[in-house]
Amino acid sequence: MRRRNLSRVMHTVSAEGPLSRAAVASRIGLTRAAVSTLVDELTRSGLLEELGPERPGRVGRPGSALAVSGNGPAGIGAEIGVDHLAVCAVDLRGRVRARAVRHVPNRDRAPEPVLGELTGLVHRIVAEAEDEGLWPAGLAVAVPGLVARDARTVVRAPNLGWFDTDLSALLPARFPLTVANEANFGALAELWLGADTPRDFLHVSAEIGIGAAVVVDGRLLHGNRGFAGELGHVPVWPDGPGCACGGRGCLEQYAGEEAVLRAAGLEPGEDRVGLLAGRAEQGDAGVRRALHDAGTALGIALTGAVNLLDPQSVVLGGALSGLAPWLLPSLRSELGRRTAGPACPVTVSALGPEGPLLGAAHSVVRGVLDDPATVAERA
Amino acid sequence: MRRRNLSRVMHTVSAEGPLSRAAVASRIGLTRAAVSTLVDELTRSGLLEELGPERPGRVGRPGSALAVSGNGPAGIGAEIGVDHLAVCAVDLRGRVRARAVRHVPNRDRAPEPVLGELTGLVHRIVAEAEDEGLWPAGLAVAVPGLVARDARTVVRAPNLGWFDTDLSALLPARFPLTVANEANFGALAELWLGADTPRDFLHVSAEIGIGAAVVVDGRLLHGNRGFAGELGHVPVWPDGPGCACGGRGCLEQYAGEEAVLRAAGLEPGEDRVGLLAGRAEQGDAGVRRALHDAGTALGIALTGAVNLLDPQSVVLGGALSGLAPWLLPSLRSELGRRTAGPACPVTVSALGPEGPLLGAAHSVVRGVLDDPATVAERA
Repeated sequence: MRRRNLSRVMHTVSAEGPLSRAAVASRIGLTRAAVSTLVDELTRSGLLEELGPERPGRVGRPGSALAVSGNGPAGIGAEIGVDHLAVCAVDLRGRVRARAVRHVPNRDRAPEPVLGELTGLVHRIVAEAEDEGLWPAGLAVAVPGLVARDARTVVRAPNLGWFDTDLSALLPARFPLTVANEANFGALAELWLGADTPRDFLHVSAEIGIGAAVVVDGRLLHGNRGFAGELGHVPVWPDGPGCACGGRGCLEQYAGEEAVLRAAGLEPGEDRVGLLAGRAEQGDAGVRRALHDAGTALGIALTGAVNLLDPQSVVLGGALSGLAPWLLPSLRSELGRRTAGPACPVTVSALGPEGPLLGAAHSVVRGVLDDPATVAERA
Repeated sequence: MRRRNLSRVMHTVSAEGPLSRAAVASRIGLTRAAVSTLVDELTRSGLLEELGPERPGRVGRPGSALAVSGNGPAGIGAEIGVDHLAVCAVDLRGRVRARAVRHVPNRDRAPEPVLGELTGLVHRIVAEAEDEGLWPAGLAVAVPGLVARDARTVVRAPNLGWFDTDLSALLPARFPLTVANEANFGALAELWLGADTPRDFLHVSAEIGIGAAVVVDGRLLHGNRGFAGELGHVPVWPDGPGCACGGRGCLEQYAGEEAVLRAAGLEPGEDRVGLLAGRAEQGDAGVRRALHDAGTALGIALTGAVNLLDPQSVVLGGALSGLAPWLLPSLRSELGRRTAGPACPVTVSALGPEGPLLGAAHSVVRGVLDDPATVAERA
């Protein structure tokens, strides 16, 4: 009960603060004395801060306003991309306090050197955060692949070439670790940070692969093995080209970055989205046609997904968001003409390619708000 | 709290009874006195029965064993099919106490005469149930179409020709009414009555249309408008024949009953499943090929669904279960060859075509167990 009340205080102050003790008490329906005890504990462990007396002019003794700490625990988010590594630190107020991105070709690179390099970046960001008075409450890592329900093991990340890889053995043991698919973290970022994000939506993101995350009533749908959301392997043209998954004509074969580059007659290089977006912007007819066709394939696969899930909206996030201007027209028209009645709205994430990284860091922050007692004990 | 404890007593006795008051008390962690008060209330309103003293030979005063009533409330389930109407009454013990099926061509028939005829059947079944000492606690109606979240309005049942039809105005107002898609009730029947049904599965059923229900962690996924599970309109061959939904090449165009009959060169008659199963059994090569191809189309659509949802299994129910022997080989092989690693298991419902009707009746029974207080007040 105490643990639960600590969490209610944290969530209330986080969502509505700065608030006085009395305001917190009235919002969560506890006595002021009970709230004071909880607040003292949270202040002692650095999760809440007193901002000093409220502005005068009110009736009664001035209360001190409380806010979640800007100098307490931080969520460390990391992303392993096919050609980049990124790490950031987010404080309890949701501000990014440190951030590093390194462009590295990770394709078919063994896990050890990749995670060694990532660990270096993590240490750098943690050091920067510590210089600012923060301390790491946990590390969450977004990967472009399927993650087991243990939230540690990458079962299959074909574009990295990793199979059944336990990341926990290769990352610093200093803080609690959570590993998840990048589309899942992207969807959580959308849910937590997006404006007017519905509670039921499908979040689609892409790098070389195409991933999706299904959010139902504000929660991720994980699936039996944790593999839900594999939109990239929905068959689009069943007799189409073979795919690494064993199937044929999967969405990834038409709308994955490499497929689009191939269709446009371009060499796959490092900044594939930048290359495609740049060419499309310049009016390159081949690139525009390739993106138009990718949008059509996305529209067909999403027609199936929308029929199965009936979401409130589809959100294009991650790397896909940068290509949205050229994908959306054919995507929406395909979805529209295959749907009786109004088609499901398709929007573009305002978080852009940063979504998964932010979602990872914020998942740690959310963990602190959900269970401040455990964090306080570790502090 | 009282309402909740009444429900806990009902669920405990339903799942494990006959039980003594003491056994109920120990299972739900209340005092024997508290349980006695609850039991008295449930017995008075006819939801529980005393079976008389437990067999002697035990230490202490013999307690009377409690069971859920076999002569109290009954769930009335009904099904509106494209060519049949069915109604049944199920008691709190889950036994079917009365049942009627009438074969009627409902295709493109206006709602008024269909529901008039259904009301007649409902009255007949209610009268039979009442003759046995039961009383109707509610009516649940399974329909082959999309139902709004109000659980009253059929938004679209193209094979009946019904659009935006509020069934509550056309059915007896005597008891609480719930209307749902037949695949949803079929899935609930599977969940409640099936042996070893997992908590995460996809239930596929068919008449002329093909419907599915998604069960996640033991609960139906409804979707934003209540339309989740429209497997029949997942595109299989995107350039295929046009469909009433506005799409092209939807699963229904390959695996719906009429599509299979057409492919086999047969006229659509009344007992379409019986006709197809009979011919297939006799070795009719055309029918077997048509069912083989339907299984392939189902396998392609299910590959997409399994990739998106990662269920523990797929269950073929409703009318599809009767055709399973000829659908399954190509369905499984298609799903297998399109899946990396072990393919999702596909099983056949043991409830067969009765699933949706039973699910409807049992949903009323579950409602009584979940909220006995409300039912007792109405008794």
